[in-house]
Amino acid sequence: MKKPTIRDIASKAGVSVTTVSLVLNDKPNTISEPTKKKIKTIAENMNYSPNHMAVSLVTKKSHTIGLIVPDISNNFFADLAKSIEQTCSKDGYSVILSNSNNSLKDSGDYVDLLYNRNVDGLIVSFATDNGYDKKEALVRKLNSLDIPLISLDSWIENLACPGVSIDHRKGGYIAAKHLLDQGHERIGCISGRKGNYSSDLRLQGFKDALEEAGVAYHPDDVVEGDYHYESGYEAAKALFKREVSAIFACNDLMAYGVFTAAKEEAMSVPGDLSLIGFDDLFFSSMLSVPLTTIRQSTDMLGKKACELMMGCLSGQTTSQTYVKLEPRLVVRQSTGRHIG
Amino acid sequence: MKKPTIRDIASKAGVSVTTVSLVLNDKPNTISEPTKKKIKTIAENMNYSPNHMAVSLVTKKSHTIGLIVPDISNNFFADLAKSIEQTCSKDGYSVILSNSNNSLKDSGDYVDLLYNRNVDGLIVSFATDNGYDKKEALVRKLNSLDIPLISLDSWIENLACPGVSIDHRKGGYIAAKHLLDQGHERIGCISGRKGNYSSDLRLQGFKDALEEAGVAYHPDDVVEGDYHYESGYEAAKALFKREVSAIFACNDLMAYGVFTAAKEEAMSVPGDLSLIGFDDLFFSSMLSVPLTTIRQSTDMLGKKACELMMGCLSGQTTSQTYVKLEPRLVVRQSTGRHIG
Repeated sequence: MKKPTIRDIASKAGVSVTTVSLVLNDKPNTISEPTKKKIKTIAENMNYSPNHMAVSLVTKKSHTIGLIVPDISNNFFADLAKSIEQTCSKDGYSVILSNSNNSLKDSGDYVDLLYNRNVDGLIVSFATDNGYDKKEALVRKLNSLDIPLISLDSWIENLACPGVSIDHRKGGYIAAKHLLDQGHERIGCISGRKGNYSSDLRLQGFKDALEEAGVAYHPDDVVEGDYHYESGYEAAKALFKREVSAIFACNDLMAYGVFTAAKEEAMSVPGDLSLIGFDDLFFSSMLSVPLTTIRQSTDMLGKKACELMMGCLSGQTTSQTYVKLEPRLVVRQSTGRHIG
Repeated sequence: MKKPTIRDIASKAGVSVTTVSLVLNDKPNTISEPTKKKIKTIAENMNYSPNHMAVSLVTKKSHTIGLIVPDISNNFFADLAKSIEQTCSKDGYSVILSNSNNSLKDSGDYVDLLYNRNVDGLIVSFATDNGYDKKEALVRKLNSLDIPLISLDSWIENLACPGVSIDHRKGGYIAAKHLLDQGHERIGCISGRKGNYSSDLRLQGFKDALEEAGVAYHPDDVVEGDYHYESGYEAAKALFKREVSAIFACNDLMAYGVFTAAKEEAMSVPGDLSLIGFDDLFFSSMLSVPLTTIRQSTDMLGKKACELMMGCLSGQTTSQTYVKLEPRLVVRQSTGRHIG
């Protein structure tokens, strides 16, 4: 069955296309009530739904928000997407989502794709690859958008838009401080990719805590991961060869990889190794050794991102706000006192 | 900065809008090579990207696939979405995704929304609520679409489109048979919502295995869940009051809920209770007691769904194919012999 068009309705009602358009789009008009009613009934009976694509070329409003995340298979981003979908829905907005697969190029392509599908605004959590050229081109593209943009859980230098994330630096600081307080002095760190906003800040917080405690920082005790489970596993194998008594993994997925590596080496957690993650994924409390971690609420992040977006759309948020949410230490069983 | 339009390029090049359109859209034309080159250079310098929305009204091709899933926060669907995104990308297609929040109404709304954004085809995994009226209306809408539709991991009666899922019935059968083979005779089952395609079939397979083994089926040993962790927890509490020695949870997330409930009651798995799930989520092997489960490959499901879609788009898949993939039993440590 072909979708009915405004032309089909006009022909059936015996009126002009313009008349139908005025009535169905609720534009000011002088058309009689009976004619209006007739047109609306015909449209309803034909299961007519306006072609948003055509309509939106004129009205420039689609009540749709575009969302781009770097890795939908990471629970953190899946939960965040769900939170944004549910919050936007309450505000009368639908969400269309794309996954950039951690590629800056794909991020840029999806910005075009969603923009060209007439979203009213874009919420973007940026990819973690660090090609500087691509980053510059992406920022140029984003800064020239004529719709609101919200940066989510991330940032790129020179970007001119509001954003929200947890205080990543503080989170890294709290994680390291927790381990230092337990008497650990050689602490390994598994970071995300160098140049990634959240990971760089978490690492900075880690270093700050060490410095504050007067504990030496060994650059070789930091191994670069990529926020995936496998990289946590590989990095752990490397760190086990150094004399660390504790590991700070910059996200929970990589901490899960450390668990697996420790199991293989018959190391007990926290007996032989203390381990702290970041994110507090749903599963972290259900591991064989429940994971100590830094909690960031995807619910609050999603709500705040939507709030910023609605503020932009209603013209109320004009300033370059960047909201930082508070991280929270969740102590479970994977960390313990250093027995030196 | 406003996005440059075809008009801006025409005015800068001193040619008509039609000329620019013919050149940039690679339509047959008699325009001279120098003029063509001039137009292309200007477009490039202005960072012009065609407005796909406007273009697609004419060309009817967007190289974009719409995907609708019921619950993006369930790892199964997040992994599936990632697999579809990666496979489509290799075929030169982008994916835009929406989350229907397990609502048939939202599924229908998102079908409209994505259709109106000119996707070339839709891949839909249907919601699990069971309002019959809404289901009928949705099927009417879907059967009248003039773009290809693939039903993913699900089905609705009277739907006329190709689809792919695991053999859910066989999966349920294998799960129950595994428990029966271990000597269990009173086996509880936590299903998904009644009317949900995958859950109804898994339950059917469960019953078939019981019947084949000559073991009595107790309808009260089946408790309805909703595929979420919490419902598994609640259902387990109810089943513990009955004399079951094993539980088949119709997905892994609900099995995780059973674990938590068992822990609270100081019941050991598998000593006091054998437990089998369905899906084999990434985390299932990392639980304190690694979970025995039925594996379905999101990778293969995603690939097959894309293959069917590409077949439809190229006009090669015309038949009403429904592909059923093989489930696989993964035995870990949560199931053991019944000591009666």
